Amino acid sequence: MDSDFNIQLKVRDYECDMQGVVNNANYQHYLEHARHEFLHHIGLDFAKLTEEGTLLVVKRIELDYHLPLRSGDTFIVDCKTERISPLRFGFVQHIYRLPDRKLVLSGKVIGTAINRQGRPFLPPEIDKVF
Amino acid sequence: MDSDFNIQLKVRDYECDMQGVVNNANYQHYLEHARHEFLHHIGLDFAKLTEEGTLLVVKRIELDYHLPLRSGDTFIVDCKTERISPLRFGFVQHIYRLPDRKLVLSGKVIGTAINRQGRPFLPPEIDKVF
Amino acid sequence: MDSDFNIQLKVRDYECDMQGVVNNANYQHYLEHARHEFLHHIGLDFAKLTEEGTLLVVKRIELDYHLPLRSGDTFIVDCKTERISPLRFGFVQHIYRLPDRKLVLSGKVIGTAINRQGRPFLPPEIDKVF
Amino acid sequence: MDSDFNIQLKVRDYECDMQGVVNNANYQHYLEHARHEFLHHIGLDFAKLTEEGTLLVVKRIELDYHLPLRSGDTFIVDCKTERISPLRFGFVQHIYRLPDRKLVLSGKVIGTAINRQGRPFLPPEIDKVF
Repeated sequence: MDSDFNIQLKVRDYECDMQGVVNNANYQHYLEHARHEFLHHIGLDFAKLTEEGTLLVVKRIELDYHLPLRSGDTFIVDCKTERISPLRFGFVQHIYRLPDRKLVLSGKVIGTAINRQGRPFLPPEIDKVF
Repeated sequence: MDSDFNIQLKVRDYECDMQGVVNNANYQHYLEHARHEFLHHIGLDFAKLTEEGTLLVVKRIELDYHLPLRSGDTFIVDCKTERISPLRFGFVQHIYRLPDRKLVLSGKVIGTAINRQGRPFLPPEIDKVF
Repeated sequence: MDSDFNIQLKVRDYECDMQGVVNNANYQHYLEHARHEFLHHIGLDFAKLTEEGTLLVVKRIELDYHLPLRSGDTFIVDCKTERISPLRFGFVQHIYRLPDRKLVLSGKVIGTAINRQGRPFLPPEIDKVF
Repeated sequence: MDSDFNIQLKVRDYECDMQGVVNNANYQHYLEHARHEFLHHIGLDFAKLTEEGTLLVVKRIELDYHLPLRSGDTFIVDCKTERISPLRFGFVQHIYRLPDRKLVLSGKVIGTAINRQGRPFLPPEIDKVF
């Protein structure tokens, strides 16, 4: 698992749907939480950036679902940064089930930063991360 | 809007996050709800299929975020079917804000059907839809 | 149904959990959405109030669950205002399943308004509603 | 904190709404997760019970909101059992912010167990817990 950062989480039963597995949209929540924890780890606070008017926004997301998570499962969510273009940055992310480390999901999330007026604006502290 | 089916929804405030716009993962909820309503429209009931042991599962999702939805916005979610392979089917979906019909999100969702044992299994009533 | 206001909604499948019924917490979402739609109906915009620094907050909630909602169910959520104290206001709310109008949930939600500093502050336009 | 059991969690940013604090309904998720973890701790598996046809359901919930949780907050959720009646059991629960241990929320959740036909049915392994 060659990644910059990872967190460990556990499935919460309300995240499962009538099929008895984690609902598709909740994996996006797991990925977001890992990205925000990564940002925090390197000194960037998503909530503080939001308050200051720097909005980090997702422009594109690609997710491949390999294996469903179930009630009781613990898992790892990782994230690795990737520069996409002058104004766009990316995260390559995976979810692995524990303890067998089977791949649950792989994803790519491309984002940008905008100001309150919706104009692209990549502050230096974000620019240097990617 | 060339599509097979669409539904109209309204943003609920709890779907918005601290940026004051609908959280990224919730668009996936909108898309799922439109797909299930489409299936119902053509006589297929997701919950009944699940109970009977036919699990419709998402294998891949691609989402392009164009414009955020905000508190008070109403919008249309459409879906159009597309055959991908013998065992995989797809939905091309869009979200349009009302009343200006600006494109909010475009997405492609690829799924398959499995039985309770996780084995691919496309029942004829699903097969004929795509 | 003696109430000030009601909205009609339909269960979305992602709101159901592994028991095949709407997860307990989601009823709170339905109630919140009905309250915000009621406020909007009488000319008060929750998002605008939030932006202006008037935060409507829940202080206490009591919910009695009578009947679960399932996939495909449509239902009514009503709300009726009630003054609790100089600084506290209440909503008496019910959820009824359609078309049989059986009682799904009854609830009481007590709230107050605070400013950004967390100090109680009931603006006249809210005061006059209750 | 005189309780039978507690878990420690951290706010995830998607749980916060446009007010910048955790949305009211999400506290109910935290409480549910703590209850299910408690059950697991004493050898009862909510998902397994559900599969076997024993549905643990909430009949009444009372929540007092004292202090909002914000982005970055870690907190403790506890739960203590209480017998209500032959067929009803209760959980007294609190949420405390860390590290200052200020009370965020106190709640009481009353539940029962039913079988797939909706008939009250309290299996001995649940009966003995309360």
